[in-house]
Amino acid sequence: MERIDDLKWKKGMDVSELVEKLGRVGFQSVELARASDVIIKMKREKARIYFSFTSNMVTSGLRGFFAQMIKLKMADVVVTTAGGIEEDIMKAMGDKFLIGRFRSNDIELHEKGMNRVGNLLIPNDAYVRFEGAISGMLSKLYRKKKRYAVSELLKELGLMLKDENSILYQAARNNVPIFCPAITDGALGFHLFMFQQEHPDFIVDVVKDFQNLLACSSHDEKKGIIALGGGVSKHHAILGLLINGGADYAVYMTTAREVSGSMSAATTDEAKSWGKIKDSSDAATVNGDVSILFPLAMIRALDALSREGMV
Amino acid sequence: MERIDDLKWKKGMDVSELVEKLGRVGFQSVELARASDVIIKMKREKARIYFSFTSNMVTSGLRGFFAQMIKLKMADVVVTTAGGIEEDIMKAMGDKFLIGRFRSNDIELHEKGMNRVGNLLIPNDAYVRFEGAISGMLSKLYRKKKRYAVSELLKELGLMLKDENSILYQAARNNVPIFCPAITDGALGFHLFMFQQEHPDFIVDVVKDFQNLLACSSHDEKKGIIALGGGVSKHHAILGLLINGGADYAVYMTTAREVSGSMSAATTDEAKSWGKIKDSSDAATVNGDVSILFPLAMIRALDALSREGMV
Amino acid sequence: MERIDDLKWKKGMDVSELVEKLGRVGFQSVELARASDVIIKMKREKARIYFSFTSNMVTSGLRGFFAQMIKLKMADVVVTTAGGIEEDIMKAMGDKFLIGRFRSNDIELHEKGMNRVGNLLIPNDAYVRFEGAISGMLSKLYRKKKRYAVSELLKELGLMLKDENSILYQAARNNVPIFCPAITDGALGFHLFMFQQEHPDFIVDVVKDFQNLLACSSHDEKKGIIALGGGVSKHHAILGLLINGGADYAVYMTTAREVSGSMSAATTDEAKSWGKIKDSSDAATVNGDVSILFPLAMIRALDALSREGMV
Amino acid sequence: MERIDDLKWKKGMDVSELVEKLGRVGFQSVELARASDVIIKMKREKARIYFSFTSNMVTSGLRGFFAQMIKLKMADVVVTTAGGIEEDIMKAMGDKFLIGRFRSNDIELHEKGMNRVGNLLIPNDAYVRFEGAISGMLSKLYRKKKRYAVSELLKELGLMLKDENSILYQAARNNVPIFCPAITDGALGFHLFMFQQEHPDFIVDVVKDFQNLLACSSHDEKKGIIALGGGVSKHHAILGLLINGGADYAVYMTTAREVSGSMSAATTDEAKSWGKIKDSSDAATVNGDVSILFPLAMIRALDALSREGMV
Repeated sequence: MERIDDLKWKKGMDVSELVEKLGRVGFQSVELARASDVIIKMKREKARIYFSFTSNMVTSGLRGFFAQMIKLKMADVVVTTAGGIEEDIMKAMGDKFLIGRFRSNDIELHEKGMNRVGNLLIPNDAYVRFEGAISGMLSKLYRKKKRYAVSELLKELGLMLKDENSILYQAARNNVPIFCPAITDGALGFHLFMFQQEHPDFIVDVVKDFQNLLACSSHDEKKGIIALGGGVSKHHAILGLLINGGADYAVYMTTAREVSGSMSAATTDEAKSWGKIKDSSDAATVNGDVSILFPLAMIRALDALSREGMV
Repeated sequence: MERIDDLKWKKGMDVSELVEKLGRVGFQSVELARASDVIIKMKREKARIYFSFTSNMVTSGLRGFFAQMIKLKMADVVVTTAGGIEEDIMKAMGDKFLIGRFRSNDIELHEKGMNRVGNLLIPNDAYVRFEGAISGMLSKLYRKKKRYAVSELLKELGLMLKDENSILYQAARNNVPIFCPAITDGALGFHLFMFQQEHPDFIVDVVKDFQNLLACSSHDEKKGIIALGGGVSKHHAILGLLINGGADYAVYMTTAREVSGSMSAATTDEAKSWGKIKDSSDAATVNGDVSILFPLAMIRALDALSREGMV
Repeated sequence: MERIDDLKWKKGMDVSELVEKLGRVGFQSVELARASDVIIKMKREKARIYFSFTSNMVTSGLRGFFAQMIKLKMADVVVTTAGGIEEDIMKAMGDKFLIGRFRSNDIELHEKGMNRVGNLLIPNDAYVRFEGAISGMLSKLYRKKKRYAVSELLKELGLMLKDENSILYQAARNNVPIFCPAITDGALGFHLFMFQQEHPDFIVDVVKDFQNLLACSSHDEKKGIIALGGGVSKHHAILGLLINGGADYAVYMTTAREVSGSMSAATTDEAKSWGKIKDSSDAATVNGDVSILFPLAMIRALDALSREGMV
Repeated sequence: MERIDDLKWKKGMDVSELVEKLGRVGFQSVELARASDVIIKMKREKARIYFSFTSNMVTSGLRGFFAQMIKLKMADVVVTTAGGIEEDIMKAMGDKFLIGRFRSNDIELHEKGMNRVGNLLIPNDAYVRFEGAISGMLSKLYRKKKRYAVSELLKELGLMLKDENSILYQAARNNVPIFCPAITDGALGFHLFMFQQEHPDFIVDVVKDFQNLLACSSHDEKKGIIALGGGVSKHHAILGLLINGGADYAVYMTTAREVSGSMSAATTDEAKSWGKIKDSSDAATVNGDVSILFPLAMIRALDALSREGMV
């Protein structure tokens, strides 16, 4: 067994060095360093990497980081929710979200047209501009064909964007499919419905996308997952893996508590009972806020992989 | 302001009396009693009640309690996830889920064909039997028509069941629509995909269901929400309310933490910044395990409402 | 293994019946029912019961419930913190604490002389009155002798009170020692210091109390623990048990998370590695707010024990 | 209001740069950057810095980091618990603690003489060696005088150690008092008791230490607090500040949840209602695991302060 080491500061320490030292500190720091190791391994072993995240992470500045990951081939399959899709598009169109406070006067914010997500704020204007843009985009798609699997539709949207920091943009250009099993659960759902009112033969085919999800990897291939937060994104990515034989590498990061029995909180151990991840897999579950944990684990992994010429 | 009262035991205290006393104890007990009050008010004021829950609650014994609520007209609109749908059907077909331990040998469970959800276990057999049944059910539906909004499909499935404790059964018989925006995110998704392979014109229309969701209530009507846990179920129920002017009454119960900025953790205060619930609404957010909190709040509400002849 | 049962409401259900049914529901409800069982067993088996709680529970209305437990011989040894001691005395002198809100304007509360503890409020007046009373009480003690172990001092204070709902009052009259290893950590500490300024030979002997703690039980005796919340109270009660061979029965209730590695969050499993509780013990760890969980588990235990004539 | 910025990786990013960027990301990353700012300010403004932490952090590798902070004059007053004291001494005597797993076979660990603290392990041997050393140390102290305030006793112990990574060693050599209001709550308590059995006139005077705590700062001085985790350490440090007029700068880091009403979870907002921190103070509450959050915030503060020649 490894020994605990006293952590010491020295001037200008870089992130990678810190994460490595954290592996000898204890509690979640140890799990974090382990997660970083698992990410390095899954890339080295050329595993297909499934990457899931929740919409609030796209609200945050992690959005550009996720786009960069896709560009760097650190994600082969993306799963997220409707909120994540629409906020990525809003930002790609130039909208700016703001930093607020957890304890706010929410009635006052409502009057100011500011929608709060934790300590972040989305201006109403962003939704108005999104409304203006999306119907035009859907019209273009409709001229091509009438029936879209969700991931096909998202690829088309991504191709229309012009922002290097956009998740959809990078995914479309790097042939990374984005799955969004609950595509109607957001403003996007409303606009799809409005569009379908005018064009009843316009179909968003969620069932078809199940096939696309299955096609993302094979039983024989090595597969890995990085699941940030929980919910339907995490569950759907895991489901795709389960049907293809389960993951060989898994990193879960969440604030949810195992004791609730929720999917969001389900650990990599629990996943083994299902075959979601293999009994023999390398896996780490880290508890805490993804906005801090994930940059640490991933920056250290990218530094290491770039030294090996892998990113 | 109200005073704190010393709680005292007396023999054979009933649940309602305890919940009322808890309103004078402090911390989450106070929020729980407030939640129970809000539930009573929303029913008394004849609000349309939106009710959302996550699939792990259907894994648990809350499932029969939810079915009973629907029967008693305590829920007018239901939103849940694919896991909740399929496990309700499995139980309706006679499958028994088991009570296990949070700390289990998950590799051993895997070998035994036991899938763990927190401290509960779902036998593989249940999935096998579900597979056997669902394709027959889908064939029957297909003979009627080819294109279903999700809530229409779930109603048809509910009508085929014969279990008073089933959520789908009670919803179908009481004209309570069940929305499931991520219908493919589960075994059900796999079987829908298999069915569509054989019948390419079979369409599950999620966009159409957005219209059905909007039709569940009007701007003028009083509206309430009981959101248990978070995720896409909570978000979708709230979205339906938002578009119709926001809720007048809201009860959120969750283990998720506000500090994560997640939807699951978003409080009734945060909701006001969006107009998801009205500035003037009666609202309560209770933190803790729904398997304990919800029976307490609801039993006390049902006791009170039944004295008034309302259930 | 036990099966999950569908929970059903019927009018006027009592607390005991609900807790028993919760044992078949899942997640924390199962752990709660288990905790209630363990409490019943420890009493039936005539175990010495160590009972620890944090000061915020004394701020709340649980305070009278704890006093009643002591009266009913459900606690043989009590461990708490200075805040718990002083607030019990304030309430015994007639002070009323109030119910507020978690989200408050704390600067405004400060101006009003209201000290917030979560969603509860302690008026400054209570501290003023406490100051007036405590120096007189200490003077009386000092006339008897100069050097007190903490538990001796607390017993003397308890004998001066006249409130049946007081923890100190019931403990003093029922020969239940109260340990408070951090006796100076509160207003009481300040007043002890002021008194010692005048009377330098007045000594509060914390080391002596270690002996008293050890004398609370023997290796041979059956021993149980009910630890509510964490911190020094929980740790000290467990320490007393560890030195006497460890607990045979253990119930922990907490909101703290195992993943932090903190004492507050330490589970009954972790305790076994230390010998704090015996390998063969009956133990339950329940996660959640004590203000709800503990009344449920204890009311059901008291109902059952009273049927057997044991309380 | 500030805007959210897309986070981007570049090779070899250092910790300070990352923490600064995190201030524009969202959720806890923003609070973390704010905490780092507050630490810089409290040092720049020459505030007296109170520093509290729990014993499990001393179990971890943060221990050497804390010692370094004291050496660098980043802490003027330290408050911790008995476990923190004794584990610092064990490590100073050469004992090695190990890294284990949260999910362990605790009965097996017990048989192997390994005591688990989350995912860390303390060998029984360390306690045996501590026992061997401490009675000799106490004998030396006793020859000097018979009655010690706790902080005096801890200073003497620190002077006997020879480990630059020891908290007690650095505190003793840098005239930083260590307060430990629950000094008997650990193995140390047992050994103090054994020693007092032989030397009944040996007195550990906790009341006297209240005076020492008050003398640590004045009303007029600027004062700051860094409270890691909760419990009696946090409460006691705050109490010292409260009596001297409250803190001007405050950083709280914790995994505890505000909704429980516990001291451990109490925010810097709640503190204002008490006057524990000033209405006008600079304050930040960060939620998450200290083993990750604190190194990040402090390394960035130390980097910045060293550029200004302040450390």
